Amino acid sequence: MDHLLDRLHTVGVNHLFGVAGDYNLAVLDRVLDHRDVRWIGTASELGAAYAADGYGRVRGFGALLTTFGVGELSAINGVAGSYAERVPLLHIAVGPTQATEHAGSAVHHSTGDGDFDRFARAHRQVVCADAVLRPSNAMAEIDRVLTACLRESRPGYLRLPRDVALGAAPPHQPLALPRGHAADANSLKAFRVAASARLAAAGTVAVLADFLVDRFKARAELAELLAAGSFPHAVLATGKTVVDESAPGFLGLYAGAMSEKRVRTAIDKADLLIRAGVLLTDMTTGKFTHRFDPEVGIDLGPTAATVDGTTFPNVPLAAALTTLTDIVKGRRVVKVRGTASTGHREPATSAKRAHMPLPGHGARRCRPTLRSLRPLTQAYLWDAVGAAIRPGYTVVTDEGTSLYGVVDQRFPSGARFIAQPLWASIGYGLPALLGAQLADSSRRGMLIIGDGAAQLTVQDLGTIGRYRLKPIVVLVNNHGYTIERITHGLRAEYNDVARWRWTRIPTALGVPRPLVLTARSQAALDRALARAATETDRLVLVEAFTGTYDVPATFKRLAVTRPDKARWVA
Amino acid sequence: MDHLLDRLHTVGVNHLFGVAGDYNLAVLDRVLDHRDVRWIGTASELGAAYAADGYGRVRGFGALLTTFGVGELSAINGVAGSYAERVPLLHIAVGPTQATEHAGSAVHHSTGDGDFDRFARAHRQVVCADAVLRPSNAMAEIDRVLTACLRESRPGYLRLPRDVALGAAPPHQPLALPRGHAADANSLKAFRVAASARLAAAGTVAVLADFLVDRFKARAELAELLAAGSFPHAVLATGKTVVDESAPGFLGLYAGAMSEKRVRTAIDKADLLIRAGVLLTDMTTGKFTHRFDPEVGIDLGPTAATVDGTTFPNVPLAAALTTLTDIVKGRRVVKVRGTASTGHREPATSAKRAHMPLPGHGARRCRPTLRSLRPLTQAYLWDAVGAAIRPGYTVVTDEGTSLYGVVDQRFPSGARFIAQPLWASIGYGLPALLGAQLADSSRRGMLIIGDGAAQLTVQDLGTIGRYRLKPIVVLVNNHGYTIERITHGLRAEYNDVARWRWTRIPTALGVPRPLVLTARSQAALDRALARAATETDRLVLVEAFTGTYDVPATFKRLAVTRPDKARWVA
Repeated sequence: MDHLLDRLHTVGVNHLFGVAGDYNLAVLDRVLDHRDVRWIGTASELGAAYAADGYGRVRGFGALLTTFGVGELSAINGVAGSYAERVPLLHIAVGPTQATEHAGSAVHHSTGDGDFDRFARAHRQVVCADAVLRPSNAMAEIDRVLTACLRESRPGYLRLPRDVALGAAPPHQPLALPRGHAADANSLKAFRVAASARLAAAGTVAVLADFLVDRFKARAELAELLAAGSFPHAVLATGKTVVDESAPGFLGLYAGAMSEKRVRTAIDKADLLIRAGVLLTDMTTGKFTHRFDPEVGIDLGPTAATVDGTTFPNVPLAAALTTLTDIVKGRRVVKVRGTASTGHREPATSAKRAHMPLPGHGARRCRPTLRSLRPLTQAYLWDAVGAAIRPGYTVVTDEGTSLYGVVDQRFPSGARFIAQPLWASIGYGLPALLGAQLADSSRRGMLIIGDGAAQLTVQDLGTIGRYRLKPIVVLVNNHGYTIERITHGLRAEYNDVARWRWTRIPTALGVPRPLVLTARSQAALDRALARAATETDRLVLVEAFTGTYDVPATFKRLAVTRPDKARWVA
Repeated sequence: MDHLLDRLHTVGVNHLFGVAGDYNLAVLDRVLDHRDVRWIGTASELGAAYAADGYGRVRGFGALLTTFGVGELSAINGVAGSYAERVPLLHIAVGPTQATEHAGSAVHHSTGDGDFDRFARAHRQVVCADAVLRPSNAMAEIDRVLTACLRESRPGYLRLPRDVALGAAPPHQPLALPRGHAADANSLKAFRVAASARLAAAGTVAVLADFLVDRFKARAELAELLAAGSFPHAVLATGKTVVDESAPGFLGLYAGAMSEKRVRTAIDKADLLIRAGVLLTDMTTGKFTHRFDPEVGIDLGPTAATVDGTTFPNVPLAAALTTLTDIVKGRRVVKVRGTASTGHREPATSAKRAHMPLPGHGARRCRPTLRSLRPLTQAYLWDAVGAAIRPGYTVVTDEGTSLYGVVDQRFPSGARFIAQPLWASIGYGLPALLGAQLADSSRRGMLIIGDGAAQLTVQDLGTIGRYRLKPIVVLVNNHGYTIERITHGLRAEYNDVARWRWTRIPTALGVPRPLVLTARSQAALDRALARAATETDRLVLVEAFTGTYDVPATFKRLAVTRPDKARWVA
């Protein structure tokens, strides 16, 4: 176990999330004794998986440890989310000894029939690599699974009999960290030729960036390309904050018909759209209302690049971006002499935005006091939340209106964003905040979550309190699943939830001296957010009440431009 | 969908548990419109699965409906528990349309790669039958899966594209309910011969009964055998309340070295031990400290009977019990003429117990008032809880000291017991209570749960309040996972949990006018339980404080007789 913890530390893990269970207790002694890895006990295993995911997004790797059967299956939804959204982490499920397995005993947490491999087989559906550790294979299998997780940017799973976990590790080499996919020189050269021609022929060029840029470690290369080309660029919701949103060329969120019109036009109408690490999903494209042709333009995937439908294999994302930067730098010199360079400058709208004062720096204070009478709307809420975000914040949103409200806000440079637009598991946000806060304690956490979503994993608000974390939690209370109401069943009881008294929750869950504020008016929200920003030494819960049927502007845009797509189901 | 709901109603389902998600909303309209099946929205899918399990234990069948991916995987631990403990239920996971599947779109709640079958494959590890419903096969597959669930007494799984769910059902026949396994006449005859000889040769005879008697619907047949033979008999923890515990021959709980000595002696030393529907698991046998030979005696399984190691296939449990009753009735006539019949009468100890006043009828009131000064101990707590149980109660315990404290108490005739000693998933109890209460609203629910376990699924206390259920909840607050402390890591931080203020929880979760009582002394507990019994029109939470390292007598017995087994891990 010490060896496994050392390996985890090597890949960036300082905190191991999970729930104690009798099979793993002796193993946890090793964790408590470990110099570099700290045990973080969550209130449920699903919370541990979400926390490990939030942690992995910040640190590049997360880890959770659960007990056999009951524990590991409770976590599997979170692990599947990491698979979908490509977060590398390791799920270690500690189970009965090999002797118990061989005897086929009907032990607790088993199905009573001597089949000890069921839960590993279930996990196999949602991880990129898995292994059953035995004394003979443990060293090799740990490294194989960790390497696969890093290479694929996805979760792995280890089934670990407790006697194996408690055994001593034989002598071993340091972990050879994978260097990422190697570029094929010929393929890269061919890509350069094709991309050069395409760029040369293009009038306007725009860039659309997404989360695979983050997962395949190509942020710097993307930033260089954007700087070199001064291309107008946008992000999908899954990719929010992969670029500096205060940069001049940043257009905002692209989400098909959910986008602001100027963003939509710039992306959909570009002569050449360069897509960096993009996965087009229903939730990030306004239900596939993008108008660009995904077969056309330059598409850069994790390990292959495509130019107008011709694929160049073994061209990793970072290498492809660097190649484009080289081309652009070369071309700029050429272009200066003659043909129009309009496409490579940001459009007027974007430039205008870039010179506007960044939100969050006092602009809101100027509003008239009439706001104290104005009820809180989602339109007001999201602008106010956006304005409250500071460069040093890690902002986490849960699924629902919270996500689509916040994602539309321009973040200050340096602020980080975490959400799950593809897997979209409600309840993710609260434990993900726990993980993200521990992964980078220098930042303040800010969670925006609806009352429906928060019910799923509320217990880990107690965990956040237990570990003395001090985030801001904006709880949007609109009495149930509003995002579902606008999809179907506007007034149906299945979109209601039990009515909790949220102001009493932090204290009930043992959060030490929480500051709890409520906001029913615009002015009250402003006051609450201003106070939350200054009260950095305690957890602040802001319960913001919005109308049961009120939704963010993103949804209104979708409903206006594509009413046929406004129902949100596939 | 209407057809599926009709089918569920046919097998005993009036309540469908689950969480709304956009894929299933239109389907839920059908549930709201259905005459016989009511939608019960839980706070999490894991809660829905546990609730369906609790419901299924009472009604013979349970059902839950979740959304694709995120919802169904959140529930899978609960479904696996039903598989282990053989509770028939149906998990319906409603997903994207077939058109979306065929297009392979990257829709939310999928892994983004067009593989829509991952979660069905994961479920396949923990259900007895599963199907993907298509218009062409839906009618047949629904009946196949339901029939398998009933026959095997285990959960089934349906993956249901939403367009298929919303399609009309073609004409169809009524569901042919399986009649249980048919007995093979020759095999049954051979069993009768072998069992007769074995019974004739035996001196003392004892019966050990377990949960498969309940699951394979042989309670009546078991009762007849016990009445006919007046055999001393005991139950395993998994089988508690499969027999009337006020009957004269009832010895109590058998749990290997965890049993009271007189029970242990009667079972382990019987010349002939008849085991009815028994599965020997670590948690129900004091970690395999039973001293009888499982290869010897008469063992009645769900579909086969064994006499001294010779197996008679296709002899179902009920038929085997009836056969034994016939033999015993015949033998009794013979026996009256001559040889000793001592073995068939209850031992003196048991008879004595049977004539003692039943607990729970005022006996506790006579104790001296000194109790107000005496701190609450587990020894006192479990006797008091046992005494508070009424014939009309459904008692649910969670895993941990709660289970091992309560299971040792003799229940009044008619009281029902629900727990999960094999799967042993902490957090099961609270949602299981929700399910059990809805399954039989004529009974009052009583939940006994530790503070560690209650943190996992606390949100469904709000659901219990939302649906206006009025159980008694005894929350045993011993500051963490006490059952784990005594296993390993007595003072280790991984056995701590966040310290919640339990008295504030019911109101925070919206429970209407809860009665919240605390008990730190014996007298306070007595007062609280007495008040809880009379306050039948509201939810009553009794927070009972016991020592962090205090455990039930069952554990003390195990530690005394088999210290090597007292550590609780396989």
